[in-house]
Amino acid sequence: MKAVVQKYGGSSVASAEKILNVARQIEKKIKKGYKLIIVVSAMGKTTDGLIKLAKEITSNPNPRELDMLLTTGEQISVSLLSMAIQSFGYKSKSLNAFQAGIKTTENFNEAKIKSFNKKRILTLLKSNDVLVVTGFQGITDEGELTTLGRGGSDTSAVALAAALGFNCEIYSDVAGIYTIDPRLHPGAKKIKNISYDEMLEMASLGAKVLHSRSVEIAKKFGITIYCGSTFSDEEGSYVMAGSKIIEQPSVTGCSIMENQAQVFIKNIPVDYNLIKKLFEKVALEGLNVDMISIINTGNNLEVSFTIVEEKKKHLEAALKKVFRGLGKWQIVYHTGFVKLSVVGIGMRSGIGVAASFFKAMKKIPIKLVTTSEIAISCLIENQYKPEAVKAIAREFKL
Amino acid sequence: MKAVVQKYGGSSVASAEKILNVARQIEKKIKKGYKLIIVVSAMGKTTDGLIKLAKEITSNPNPRELDMLLTTGEQISVSLLSMAIQSFGYKSKSLNAFQAGIKTTENFNEAKIKSFNKKRILTLLKSNDVLVVTGFQGITDEGELTTLGRGGSDTSAVALAAALGFNCEIYSDVAGIYTIDPRLHPGAKKIKNISYDEMLEMASLGAKVLHSRSVEIAKKFGITIYCGSTFSDEEGSYVMAGSKIIEQPSVTGCSIMENQAQVFIKNIPVDYNLIKKLFEKVALEGLNVDMISIINTGNNLEVSFTIVEEKKKHLEAALKKVFRGLGKWQIVYHTGFVKLSVVGIGMRSGIGVAASFFKAMKKIPIKLVTTSEIAISCLIENQYKPEAVKAIAREFKL
Repeated sequence: MKAVVQKYGGSSVASAEKILNVARQIEKKIKKGYKLIIVVSAMGKTTDGLIKLAKEITSNPNPRELDMLLTTGEQISVSLLSMAIQSFGYKSKSLNAFQAGIKTTENFNEAKIKSFNKKRILTLLKSNDVLVVTGFQGITDEGELTTLGRGGSDTSAVALAAALGFNCEIYSDVAGIYTIDPRLHPGAKKIKNISYDEMLEMASLGAKVLHSRSVEIAKKFGITIYCGSTFSDEEGSYVMAGSKIIEQPSVTGCSIMENQAQVFIKNIPVDYNLIKKLFEKVALEGLNVDMISIINTGNNLEVSFTIVEEKKKHLEAALKKVFRGLGKWQIVYHTGFVKLSVVGIGMRSGIGVAASFFKAMKKIPIKLVTTSEIAISCLIENQYKPEAVKAIAREFKL
Repeated sequence: MKAVVQKYGGSSVASAEKILNVARQIEKKIKKGYKLIIVVSAMGKTTDGLIKLAKEITSNPNPRELDMLLTTGEQISVSLLSMAIQSFGYKSKSLNAFQAGIKTTENFNEAKIKSFNKKRILTLLKSNDVLVVTGFQGITDEGELTTLGRGGSDTSAVALAAALGFNCEIYSDVAGIYTIDPRLHPGAKKIKNISYDEMLEMASLGAKVLHSRSVEIAKKFGITIYCGSTFSDEEGSYVMAGSKIIEQPSVTGCSIMENQAQVFIKNIPVDYNLIKKLFEKVALEGLNVDMISIINTGNNLEVSFTIVEEKKKHLEAALKKVFRGLGKWQIVYHTGFVKLSVVGIGMRSGIGVAASFFKAMKKIPIKLVTTSEIAISCLIENQYKPEAVKAIAREFKL
């Protein structure tokens, strides 16, 4: 059986007209002799609308009930897309999490996929041209509905492809992965092939093309992901094992995270157990922090890290619980930053990337620098963003 | 365990504010020591909105996919209502058709309930104050989602009450059952107790308070249904076995069906097998016809019946299939009628109801009359409706 998993994002199915357009894309693949498993997100801004409705009921909706609510979004889009495919004369069936047997862990709002009912899916695929499966959701062993966290439909699609051994194609309103976000740098080039590790750095650093967890699963199971546009036939990008990519520039792309705040926590007693508790709590609350530094001033510890500005209140509430009873600790924010990163698997072997990076950035005041094996990141003030992007693009030919 | 099933209609949960109001009603009952199973419909006009969306995709949506789509409406309202109840400090859990094990037949769009997972529902009820269950929907043995037809949430509630042996309370924006629709006759009286058979005549004849099938189930299992208002504490009406109602007027109520057309099918060969096929087809298409008469003119048969005006096209398409190949048959419509019926279990024993009926209607030209054991119905022109309602109300003290 020649089959493929395709995923279409919320903006691709935002209206009846767009759903019919997606059905036409699917028809092209059917005509090439494929059977398809389609994973879809909720239509347009449906999920945001449902969350807003829940917040009108209570400021703190129960996570279990919230998942019960949110999972309806994808059930709406799968049924409509399935109707559209049928209206073109093909056999299609929509499946929700119960019907596809998408088993997850019990963490409501951020569950992890454990397994699918592969046998049922394959049996149904044999008697249909297309199966349309709800992304973003699953069920626990007890039959409770769960969701995978925002962007989770990518993860659903890649996990399905991995479980069934099919290829995976992710369609959105962007025709692939670019060296730099084209809205920031219109001259950005499309990346034909990118390795899992680079994509993970790009995804976690702010390129919004793919959900990080989906890339982790693809890496684990060796699935190649194709990222293309729902709205054009333009060739997209492939995310694959780095070892398969023959020619590899030292820097593949540049990603930008906006609205960064630098947080300084001062006057912490010299007790590294407190630091451990601090970062445990931050992780538990799902707060993403980066560019961490810890300084021992002799009398005290001073911790600093970056966080997205809108999480300040959330962070402060978490810190109050960790430092309860400690009199002197103090928190200071510096805001108005962006984090700019260059990413490239070629950095591992290539030399001189750091030198080129600092050469390009020579006129820009850098607040902080961190590096990973395949990335260099720096924190700069908002106002320098356009100049920095231009200089980096020129230096690394992005 | 002191427990009750309550059902709230779509207009009772049409907004976050109204959902919180329903939660407050539920709280009153919890404080009286009850455990509650709540059945809710979709919010306001949600179901209509989803049908409209499906029609934008295709004029003829697949019934299985349509049910997949429509069942999301109730899942949204149960999760929101459950959040609201929890926000008042009570233990609540929402359940969809999978979770409550609401098994139905496989007739998509008009399935019939076969059973519930009583054990699971009772176990969950023990550890919660409230369970909020999706009305209108079920699953087949194969895990396909089904719906029970419009108004089906009443049926869900009464069937649940019957299965569990609990009382059943149906709340809507009308505070009970009236002798005549109060919008037509503002002086209409509330009926304190009404028998199943009277309610069935009233429901099928156009009183929109209760779904007929819910009354049939209540009759079968001897469940008393209380019908009250979501928005006031005014005492409502009880639907119960006629034998329990001590004092019974000969006529309990008067119901009106608007937009009636009288259909005449002429020049049918004298072949009663054709008539059988005609009414089989009409039933199969779900077309409700009434006031049937068949005349043998000697050379031909002439069939007439009433149907709601908006079903004319649907009827015509069905007739064409039945009479395919017959040259001469002809269809004629007379439109602009209402059907007025008086209903009363007391008619069985009471005498003179027909005489009183025709006395009241003496100034009104009656097109057609039919009777059942507990009802007299007549077809009159629209223009006579107000006068007829007034005369009937006066005569029978409604």
